[in-house]
Amino acid sequence: MPDFDSVLHPDFLIPMVPERQILKAHSVALRDGRIAAILPREDARLMMAVEHIDLPDCALMPGLINAHCHASMSLFRGYADDLPLASWLQQYIWPSETQFISPDFIRDGSELAIADLILGGTTTLIDQYFFPEMTAEAVDRSGLRALLTFPVIDVETAWARDAESCINNGLALRDRYRDHDRIDVGFGPHSTYMVSEQTLSRVAVLADELDAPIQIHLHETREEVLGSVERTGMRPIDHLEQLGLLGPRTQCVHMTALGDQDIETIATQGAHVVHCPKSNLKLGSGICPAQRLLDQGINVALGTDGAASNNRLNMLNELQTASLLGKTAHGDPRALDAWTTLEMATLGGARAMGQQDRLGSIEVGKDADMIALDLSGVHHQPHYNLASSIVYANSGSEVAWSWIAGKAVVRSGQLCTLDLAELRERAAAWSAKITDFRATLEHSKHAN
Amino acid sequence: MPDFDSVLHPDFLIPMVPERQILKAHSVALRDGRIAAILPREDARLMMAVEHIDLPDCALMPGLINAHCHASMSLFRGYADDLPLASWLQQYIWPSETQFISPDFIRDGSELAIADLILGGTTTLIDQYFFPEMTAEAVDRSGLRALLTFPVIDVETAWARDAESCINNGLALRDRYRDHDRIDVGFGPHSTYMVSEQTLSRVAVLADELDAPIQIHLHETREEVLGSVERTGMRPIDHLEQLGLLGPRTQCVHMTALGDQDIETIATQGAHVVHCPKSNLKLGSGICPAQRLLDQGINVALGTDGAASNNRLNMLNELQTASLLGKTAHGDPRALDAWTTLEMATLGGARAMGQQDRLGSIEVGKDADMIALDLSGVHHQPHYNLASSIVYANSGSEVAWSWIAGKAVVRSGQLCTLDLAELRERAAAWSAKITDFRATLEHSKHAN
Repeated sequence: MPDFDSVLHPDFLIPMVPERQILKAHSVALRDGRIAAILPREDARLMMAVEHIDLPDCALMPGLINAHCHASMSLFRGYADDLPLASWLQQYIWPSETQFISPDFIRDGSELAIADLILGGTTTLIDQYFFPEMTAEAVDRSGLRALLTFPVIDVETAWARDAESCINNGLALRDRYRDHDRIDVGFGPHSTYMVSEQTLSRVAVLADELDAPIQIHLHETREEVLGSVERTGMRPIDHLEQLGLLGPRTQCVHMTALGDQDIETIATQGAHVVHCPKSNLKLGSGICPAQRLLDQGINVALGTDGAASNNRLNMLNELQTASLLGKTAHGDPRALDAWTTLEMATLGGARAMGQQDRLGSIEVGKDADMIALDLSGVHHQPHYNLASSIVYANSGSEVAWSWIAGKAVVRSGQLCTLDLAELRERAAAWSAKITDFRATLEHSKHAN
Repeated sequence: MPDFDSVLHPDFLIPMVPERQILKAHSVALRDGRIAAILPREDARLMMAVEHIDLPDCALMPGLINAHCHASMSLFRGYADDLPLASWLQQYIWPSETQFISPDFIRDGSELAIADLILGGTTTLIDQYFFPEMTAEAVDRSGLRALLTFPVIDVETAWARDAESCINNGLALRDRYRDHDRIDVGFGPHSTYMVSEQTLSRVAVLADELDAPIQIHLHETREEVLGSVERTGMRPIDHLEQLGLLGPRTQCVHMTALGDQDIETIATQGAHVVHCPKSNLKLGSGICPAQRLLDQGINVALGTDGAASNNRLNMLNELQTASLLGKTAHGDPRALDAWTTLEMATLGGARAMGQQDRLGSIEVGKDADMIALDLSGVHHQPHYNLASSIVYANSGSEVAWSWIAGKAVVRSGQLCTLDLAELRERAAAWSAKITDFRATLEHSKHAN
C-alpha cells in the first residue's frame, strides 16, 4: 500500500508560505487531492508512491488563480479590437452576444478558454458569464477549479428573463454543485450601472444569508464614476456600501479612478480588489493603483478578464504586465515587485475567494493545486533570482505540469483533459458564423 | 537548374507592403538571399526549387527589427530587478560591468541573446555595447543581421581608454565589415550626459562624412531632461540639434518626457524614435508618446532594450506591450492599433536604419528576412483578424521558421545556428561568478 499518490521532485520549490523562499532539493508528496508532505529530496525518494515524477529544470509553485474572466468570450477573441469601449460594446459585442449566446456557444467557448487557461498556469478560475451551467460542466470535465459568479442583470438575455430569473437560475446552480469539490457558485451582479438598486439590495441580503461570494465590475472607468455621481449623487463604491454589498465577501473588479476616500472605504469594509491590467490598458479604461491598495492592507488579486478585451487568458503574462505597469503607475520601480505579483496571483486570489485555508500556497493540508514551470528556455538564462525570472522573463508557455486537486491535468506540456484539435475545429465553425453576422452588421450600418 | 532556392507556402502572407493586407493561397520564392517572386499558390507549386516548404497554420511576415538592445547584457538578466534606476546602475550594473566585461563575456552574452532574439522573431538587431567586435562575430556565426552602433563615452572601460579610442576601435570595426552583407556599423554615443560636447561634435562630423547611422539614448527620463537644462540651459534634444547630431541618420532611443516643441524638433530634423515600452515601464522611466509622434509624421521603431531592464528580448511580446500601453498613454483605445505596431516593428526599424529599400516588407527584390508564425495554438483561436491575433494574443513563442538573407536560421521551431545546451552551460558559469561577486558587493556595503 503506497504512502502517497504521487511524489514530485522539482529542481526548485516555491511554496509562497513561508514567503519569498525558494527551496532546492525538496519534494512534495500528494495524497487524496491534498498536499500530504514537503520533504527533503533524499527522504522523498524512499517513499512508496503510485508515481514519482521528476521535474528537472522546473520550479514547482502554487497554481495561479485567475480572479476575473468571462471564459466563453474566448470565441470573440480578436473579433473587435482597437475600438473605444462604447463602440466595442454597442456595435459589436452586445449585438453578437444577442445573436449567438446559447448553451452550445458557452460550452465551446468555455472549453476553448479553459484549455488556454490551464496551459497558461491557471488552476482556479473566477468566471462571470451567461449559462454558467454550461461553464460548470466544462470546468467539471476539464479538471479545473472554479468559482462561477452567475450574472445578475435586469435586462433580458438568452439565459434569463430578468434579474429574478438570473437569481433563481443561479441559486439552482449553486444547489446543484453544493457538494462538488472543485466548483463553487457565487453572485455576479454586473455593475451598479447595469443592475437596479432593488436587485443589488436583494443580492446583498441573499449573499449574506448564504455566506456566498460576490463579484462586481466596479470603477472600471472614470466615466462610470462620473455617471454614477450624476445618477445617484454617489460614487459607485459608496453606492455599493450603502446597499450593503461591500464587505469581506465582495470582489471589486477593475477599480481604476480611485481617490483616497475610495481606498479607505475598501480597506474599512475588508473588500477585495481584482486587478486586470491588460484589459484596462487595451480598452484605455485607466490603471488600478494596486501598490497603493496593498500599502493600505487591501487584498489585491489578479485577473485576465475575457479574451475579447485582453486577448490572452494567460496569468503568467498577466502578472508580468501587472509588475511592469505597477512601477510606472506608482512612479517607483520597486512597486509591485516580482514576489508581490506572484502573491497576488496565488494567495491574493485565494483570499478574495475566502479560501486561503485551502488554496494559494504549497503547505501540508492544502489542496494540491500546483504548476511546474520549465525554466530551461534560453530566455530564462541565467538564473539569479527565480521569482524575477518567472515574473519578468516568462513567455507564458512554461507550464510543463499542472495538478488540480491532486490530479495531473497537464503532463509534460500536454493537456490531458481536452482535445485541442477538436477545440480548434469548433472555434473555426463559430468564427465562420460570427464573421458572416458581422458582415451583415456592417452592411446594415453602411445602408443607414 | 532550379528557378529558386526555396519556395514557401504559408496559409497566410502578410507582406506589410501593400499595407494592411493578408493574402491567402500565395507563396514566396527566394533566390540568392532575396525575395524573387510572390506567386499564387497553384503557380508556385509548379516552380523548380531546391526546397518547397509547407507552412500550415503559419502566417509569413517580414522579420522583426529590434531597434535597441544591449545584447550581451543578457548575462545580467534578473541580476538586479525591482530597483530604482540610480541604485540599479550605480550599485549593481556599473560595478559588475567593470568587473566582468571582457571579450569572453561579450561573446557568451551576445550568443545567449541572439538565440533568444531569433527565436522571438528578430531578424535584424540594432545593438550598442562594449567589444562590438565580439558581438559582430556572434552575429556573423548566428546568421542574424545587425547594425552595431559602437559605444562612444568619455570614461575608460575595458574596451576603450577614452572617447578617441572608442571612435578608433569603432571605425576599425566599420572597415572590417565594409563588405559584409548582414553587418553594418554605426556610431553609438551613449547620451548627452555621458559624452562631452566635444566628443558629440566629433561624432557629428565623422558620421556625416561617412554617411553612418547614429544611435543615442535621449530623453529616457524626466530627470535627464531637467539635468540637461540645469547643466547646459538646453533640453537634450535641443543640445543634440545644436551639436549637429540630429538628422535623418539619427535614432533617438526612449524619448519620454516630450513637449510639443520637442516633437516638432524631431519632425523637422527627420530623426527617428526608438520606443522601448517594457524597459521604460520596468525602470519607471516614463512613457514615449508614440501615437503623437506618428501623428506628426515621425518614424517610430521598436526595441526591447537589454535583458537587464526588460527582461525579455522578444519583439512579439514588445509589440504587444507597445499597443496596449499606447492606448492608455494616448487615452484612446484606437491608438497604436495592431497594424501600426506591426509596422513599427518592421518598416519602422528599416527606415530608422536607412534600409527601407532592403528590409521591412515582403516585396520582390528585398532581402529575404522573414518569419513564419505558427498560429495553431488555442490561444490564437478563433481567427477573425490575423494582425490582431499576432499582436494581442501572441506568447512570443510562435516563431516556427525564420529566414535571414534567404537562409533558414530556424526550422520547425529549432534554432539551426547556435547550440542552446552550450549557451545554457556558459550562462550558468557566468552567473555563478557574478553571484559570488554580488555577494562581495553586498558584504562590503554592509561592512560600511
